[in-house]
Amino acid sequence: MIAHLVETSPVETEKAANDGGVVGAVLDGRDTQEAILAGMNPQTPSSPGDGAAPRDSQGNHWNAAYAIASGNLLADMRFNVTGESQGRLQDARLYQLTQDSGVRDMFSFLLARDTIHQNQWLAAVEDLKADGLEDTLVPSNFPQEREMSEIAYRFMNFSEGEDSAQARWVSGPSMDGKGEFEYVSEPQAMGPQMEVLDPPVEPRLYSTPKQPMQPSYS
Amino acid sequence: MIAHLVETSPVETEKAANDGGVVGAVLDGRDTQEAILAGMNPQTPSSPGDGAAPRDSQGNHWNAAYAIASGNLLADMRFNVTGESQGRLQDARLYQLTQDSGVRDMFSFLLARDTIHQNQWLAAVEDLKADGLEDTLVPSNFPQEREMSEIAYRFMNFSEGEDSAQARWVSGPSMDGKGEFEYVSEPQAMGPQMEVLDPPVEPRLYSTPKQPMQPSYS
Amino acid sequence: MIAHLVETSPVETEKAANDGGVVGAVLDGRDTQEAILAGMNPQTPSSPGDGAAPRDSQGNHWNAAYAIASGNLLADMRFNVTGESQGRLQDARLYQLTQDSGVRDMFSFLLARDTIHQNQWLAAVEDLKADGLEDTLVPSNFPQEREMSEIAYRFMNFSEGEDSAQARWVSGPSMDGKGEFEYVSEPQAMGPQMEVLDPPVEPRLYSTPKQPMQPSYS
Amino acid sequence: MIAHLVETSPVETEKAANDGGVVGAVLDGRDTQEAILAGMNPQTPSSPGDGAAPRDSQGNHWNAAYAIASGNLLADMRFNVTGESQGRLQDARLYQLTQDSGVRDMFSFLLARDTIHQNQWLAAVEDLKADGLEDTLVPSNFPQEREMSEIAYRFMNFSEGEDSAQARWVSGPSMDGKGEFEYVSEPQAMGPQMEVLDPPVEPRLYSTPKQPMQPSYS
Amino acid sequence: MIAHLVETSPVETEKAANDGGVVGAVLDGRDTQEAILAGMNPQTPSSPGDGAAPRDSQGNHWNAAYAIASGNLLADMRFNVTGESQGRLQDARLYQLTQDSGVRDMFSFLLARDTIHQNQWLAAVEDLKADGLEDTLVPSNFPQEREMSEIAYRFMNFSEGEDSAQARWVSGPSMDGKGEFEYVSEPQAMGPQMEVLDPPVEPRLYSTPKQPMQPSYS
Amino acid sequence: MIAHLVETSPVETEKAANDGGVVGAVLDGRDTQEAILAGMNPQTPSSPGDGAAPRDSQGNHWNAAYAIASGNLLADMRFNVTGESQGRLQDARLYQLTQDSGVRDMFSFLLARDTIHQNQWLAAVEDLKADGLEDTLVPSNFPQEREMSEIAYRFMNFSEGEDSAQARWVSGPSMDGKGEFEYVSEPQAMGPQMEVLDPPVEPRLYSTPKQPMQPSYS
Repeated sequence: MIAHLVETSPVETEKAANDGGVVGAVLDGRDTQEAILAGMNPQTPSSPGDGAAPRDSQGNHWNAAYAIASGNLLADMRFNVTGESQGRLQDARLYQLTQDSGVRDMFSFLLARDTIHQNQWLAAVEDLKADGLEDTLVPSNFPQEREMSEIAYRFMNFSEGEDSAQARWVSGPSMDGKGEFEYVSEPQAMGPQMEVLDPPVEPRLYSTPKQPMQPSYS
Repeated sequence: MIAHLVETSPVETEKAANDGGVVGAVLDGRDTQEAILAGMNPQTPSSPGDGAAPRDSQGNHWNAAYAIASGNLLADMRFNVTGESQGRLQDARLYQLTQDSGVRDMFSFLLARDTIHQNQWLAAVEDLKADGLEDTLVPSNFPQEREMSEIAYRFMNFSEGEDSAQARWVSGPSMDGKGEFEYVSEPQAMGPQMEVLDPPVEPRLYSTPKQPMQPSYS
Repeated sequence: MIAHLVETSPVETEKAANDGGVVGAVLDGRDTQEAILAGMNPQTPSSPGDGAAPRDSQGNHWNAAYAIASGNLLADMRFNVTGESQGRLQDARLYQLTQDSGVRDMFSFLLARDTIHQNQWLAAVEDLKADGLEDTLVPSNFPQEREMSEIAYRFMNFSEGEDSAQARWVSGPSMDGKGEFEYVSEPQAMGPQMEVLDPPVEPRLYSTPKQPMQPSYS
Repeated sequence: MIAHLVETSPVETEKAANDGGVVGAVLDGRDTQEAILAGMNPQTPSSPGDGAAPRDSQGNHWNAAYAIASGNLLADMRFNVTGESQGRLQDARLYQLTQDSGVRDMFSFLLARDTIHQNQWLAAVEDLKADGLEDTLVPSNFPQEREMSEIAYRFMNFSEGEDSAQARWVSGPSMDGKGEFEYVSEPQAMGPQMEVLDPPVEPRLYSTPKQPMQPSYS
Repeated sequence: MIAHLVETSPVETEKAANDGGVVGAVLDGRDTQEAILAGMNPQTPSSPGDGAAPRDSQGNHWNAAYAIASGNLLADMRFNVTGESQGRLQDARLYQLTQDSGVRDMFSFLLARDTIHQNQWLAAVEDLKADGLEDTLVPSNFPQEREMSEIAYRFMNFSEGEDSAQARWVSGPSMDGKGEFEYVSEPQAMGPQMEVLDPPVEPRLYSTPKQPMQPSYS
Repeated sequence: MIAHLVETSPVETEKAANDGGVVGAVLDGRDTQEAILAGMNPQTPSSPGDGAAPRDSQGNHWNAAYAIASGNLLADMRFNVTGESQGRLQDARLYQLTQDSGVRDMFSFLLARDTIHQNQWLAAVEDLKADGLEDTLVPSNFPQEREMSEIAYRFMNFSEGEDSAQARWVSGPSMDGKGEFEYVSEPQAMGPQMEVLDPPVEPRLYSTPKQPMQPSYS
C-alpha cells in the first residue's frame, strides 16, 4: 500500500511548500501541484541540480547510435535533410503546444534556423550532382551490370486490389533517368524450388526434431 | 590466468572437432579455427540454435528507436530515401567484401531492389509536391511570418577563414524559392546582454556556490 | 531558476488553450491542466503527431532483446505461456485502473483473447509431449549420463532455519518422473580445495598487487 | 587506410609476444594469433583486468529490463520454468561446442542444477494450484463474466488453407477446463463499421493533409 | 483525436474512483487526479503490482554498464568515493523536495550512511598509499620513462584569454610530487606535417571521391 | 546449416582477396584471414566506410547516461579524477597488449596526458577546499544535525569473523575530521518491529493471495 505517499493532503503540501520547500524556492513560491501542472520533470531539481541533462523528454539518454557518417556524402547529406525536416516539424508542433510568448520567440528562431538548414543541405545535394561526384542513386558508381537489372525498376504488387497501379512510382520514367517503372500485378516467386525445405535437425543443437530421436553423443 | 582456455592445442582441437564436435557438424567437418577464420558469430549455434537472431553484426539488438512515423509524409518519405540510400551503400560494400558467388548473387538482387526503392520514394516526394500537399520545406504550411524571417536564409560563418563564402549554399536563390542565401562573415551575438549571468545558487540544491555559505534550513 | 515556466498562471494558460492552443484542439477544447490530469503523454501530439509510437508507457523503445526463438519448441512455447500470463495479468490490472466503459470494453476483449492464448500454448506443450518430441525437461534428449546426476534432484538449503524442508519441491517424486527430490540441510562445498586462492598478479595488467612491486617492462 | 595495423607481420608479432607481451604472459607464452583463435575477448585483459565483466558474449551489458516480479506467483513461476528451460538448452549446446574436459565438467554440473531447477518450479506451480491460490489461467480470480466470453476459446484462422483445423488447440476441451476450443475458418470483422475512417487532420500538428490547406494560426 | 480519453469529466472520474476503482483502493479512497498530483508512477499498480521495479524515476532500467571493477583498487575506490558523493548529494536534494516527516526520516538515515561511506573509501585510499601498494597516480607502477614525460605536467591553453594562467593546476608542484605544472599560452601542433592529408578514396568502398571516377570492378 | 559460408576454402579466399577484394585493397593486399588475425572489426570497411564510429570495441554505442554534471563541483571533479584514473589504467594495459611501436607511441602520449589530467583534477579538488567552497564531504553544507548523526561514523560488521575490526576505516578519526570511526561487531535491527509484515493483498491487483479468495468486482 502506498497510501502513505499522499497522507499529507494536497492542501497541506501546498502550504508546506510555500513555507520553504525547495520546489517552492525554485518555482518562486509555487507549490508541488503547480510544478506538476506545469509539467516540470521531477529529476530537474534533483539529478542535475536545476541544470540540463542530455535526455529526451521521456528520460531516454542521448546515444550515438544515431550518429551516422558513411563517407558517402550524398547518403549523409540526405540524412541531414531528413534530420532538419523532422526537427523543423517538431519545432512547429511545440510552438503550437504553448501560448507562452518567450518560448514561442525561441521556437520562432529555431524554425528560421531549420529553414536555412533544410535549404542548405538540399543545395549541397544539388552541388554534389553538379560536380559529377554523385548522381541520383547512392552509391552512384557501383557498376550497374552487377546488379540484377531486370528487377531494378519493377514494382511488385503484394497488396489486395490494384490501387497501386495508378501511382506515379509504378509507371513512367524512373527518377534516376536510367529506367522505366514497371508494374507487376501478381508477382511470382523467382528462385528455384527449394528441394530441401526441412533440413534434418542437428541433434546436438537440441532444437525440437520432426520425429522422436535418441540422445546423441560426441 | 586464462591460459587454461588454450590448453588444448589448436591441432588437438581441430582433430577433436572433426571427431564430432557440433561446430564440425554444423560446418561440414571443419574445425573451430576455420569457423573463426570464416567469421562465424559464436552465438549462432548456441543462442538461436543455428537460426537467425534480430541483432546487428556487433550484437546490438534491433530496437524501435529508429521507427519514426511523424505523420508528415514529406519528412517521413525523405527518411525512406535516406534509409534506402544508406542501405544500398552497405549492399555495395558488402558485395565487395566477399568473392563468394552465391553471396554476391544475393547482393546483386538486393542492390536492384534498393535501386527501385530509392527511385520510388524520390517519386513519391515529387508526387506530394505535384499534388500541392507539401512544398520544399517540412512542414510546408507553418505560417511563414511566425518564424524569425530575417535569419531564415542567413549563413553565419563560424569557421576560420572565408572558404565557405564560395559555396553554393551561401549565395544565390534558396532551394525553396522563397529567399536568397546570405553570407555573414563575422556573426554578432543577437540577444540582449544577459543582466544576470550568474544567478545566485539556491542553497538547498547543494550545487557549489560562488562564495562560502552557511547550511540552509527549511 | 525555471520559475519562468509557470509565469503564465494556470488560469491564463487554460483560457489561452481554449482560445485555440493545439492541446485544446486535440482534446476538444480542454486545457493543458486537464491533459495532464488525464495522464496524456506530452510526446503524443509532438513526436508522432497524435499517432502511436512503439514505446512503453515510460518511454522505453521496444527492442528485440526480448525476441527469443531458440528452436527448441518446448522452451519457446513455455515462453509463450509466460508471455500470455504476464499479459493477461496486466490486462486485468489496467481494467481496474479505469472506470471508462469504452476502455473497459477493449480490455474485456483482450482478456478473452489472452484466455485462449494461454490455453492454446498450454495445449501445444501437451501436444509436443504426446508426440514424443519433447518430455518434461528442456532439452529432453541430452544424454542423462553426461550430467552430474547425483545432484540433479538435490535441494541444498542455504537459508536460515529448516522451513524449506516442508516444501513440495524438496521431497517426493520429481516432476519429470526420473528422480526423487532430496533435501540437504547443511550443504558442503563440493570442489577440491583450491591450492592457489590468490594467484600472483600479472604486473603488466596494473591491478593492485598484494605486495609493493617494481615497474615491469616488456 | 588501416594497412598500418598489420604492418608488423604475424610472424614478428608472434615472436614479440613470446618475448614478453602481456597476451603472451596471460596465455602462457602463446601469441596474439592463438588468443584470437581461442576466441579470447580482447576486452578481457584490458577493461576488467583479466577478471569477469557483467556482459553477454556480444558485449551487451546485463540490464534489469528482464527482472520481472509481477506479484502473481503463477505468472512469475512460469517465467522461472521458462528461464531454466532456456538456460539448460544453452548449457547443452555449449557442452557440445567444446571438447575440453574441464569445461565439459562445469557444464555437467550446470545441466544437473538446471534439471532440479526446472523440476522445482514445475512443482511449485502444481503446489499453487493444489492450495487453491491459482488455477490454470493467470490471473485466476478475475471475474469471468467481465471478459468477452464468447470469443475466449475461439481460434480464428488467418492462415491460407485449413491445416490449423487439425491441431489440438482448435477443438476439444480447453486446458483450463472451462471451455471448448472452437475453430472459425473465415473470421469476420467484429466491430461496427467505422463511420469516420479518415478524421480531418488537425492543421496545427502539420501532418500531411488530404487536401491542400492554408497555414493555420492560433 | 484522443479527446475520448477525457470524455469522462474529471469530476465523474473522481466519483467513480471513490466508488471502488483500484487507484482509489490503493490510495485510501483518493482519486486518479490526486494520484497524479502526488506524482505516483502509473506503472506502479500495473506492472509490478504495487511493488518495486528496478528502474530510475524516468523508467530507465538498471544496467550493468555502470558496474566497473578494474582490479586496480585505487581506481576502483576512487569510483566508490565518487559514487557516494553523487549519492549523498541526491539524498540532500530529495530531502529538500519533500516536507513529509517519514520520508525525511528515511533520508536522514541515508545521509548518515553516505557520510560514513564517503569517509570509509577515503580512508581506504589513504590506506593503499600507506601500504605502498598505490601512489597518487593510477596506475602507480607503469614505468615513468615509457610515457612522453615532457608533456606530462604541461597545461595547454586552448581557451580565449589567459584566465587559466592563474589557476592552481597550471603552476606549482603537481599533486603526485613528481613534476611541476607548466603553462603554455599558445600551444603548437606537435606531430610532423602529414604529407598525405587526403589519401585517395578506395573506389570499392563508395565513399564520395574528390574527383568523378568510373565504376570499379573486382 | 551454414556450411555454405566456408564453401570457398581459406586458400581460395586468400587468393581471391589478393586478386582485388576490398579487404585486400584496404589492407595492402593482405587477405581476409590476416584481417581477422589482426583483429579488424568487420564493420570498419562496411558501415562507416573505413572511418571511425562512436562505439566501444564491443559495438556498444556511446551514450550520454555517463554524462553527469550535478552542479556540485566536488562531486563532479571527483568523478573526473575517477575517469582519468580508469582511463590511464586502460592506456597502460593497451600499451602492453601490443608491440607495435607506432601504437605504443600514441599510448605514450596518452599516458602523459592522463598524468596531468589526474594531477589537475586532484589540484582542483584541493583548490575548492582551500577556498572554503567545499569540505571533505559532498555536499558540505547540508545541516549536520538533520542527519541521523549517531550512525554517521559507525561501521556495522555483517561479515563472518572479525577481520574487519583491524581496518583503518573502522577506528580512529574519520577523514572529514568530524567524527571517530566506530566498530559494531554484531549490529542489531534499528527500526521498530513491523506490526503488519504481510498486509492484505488488494484483490483487484491480482497478485497471489495468502488464502484463496473470490473474484472481486468494482
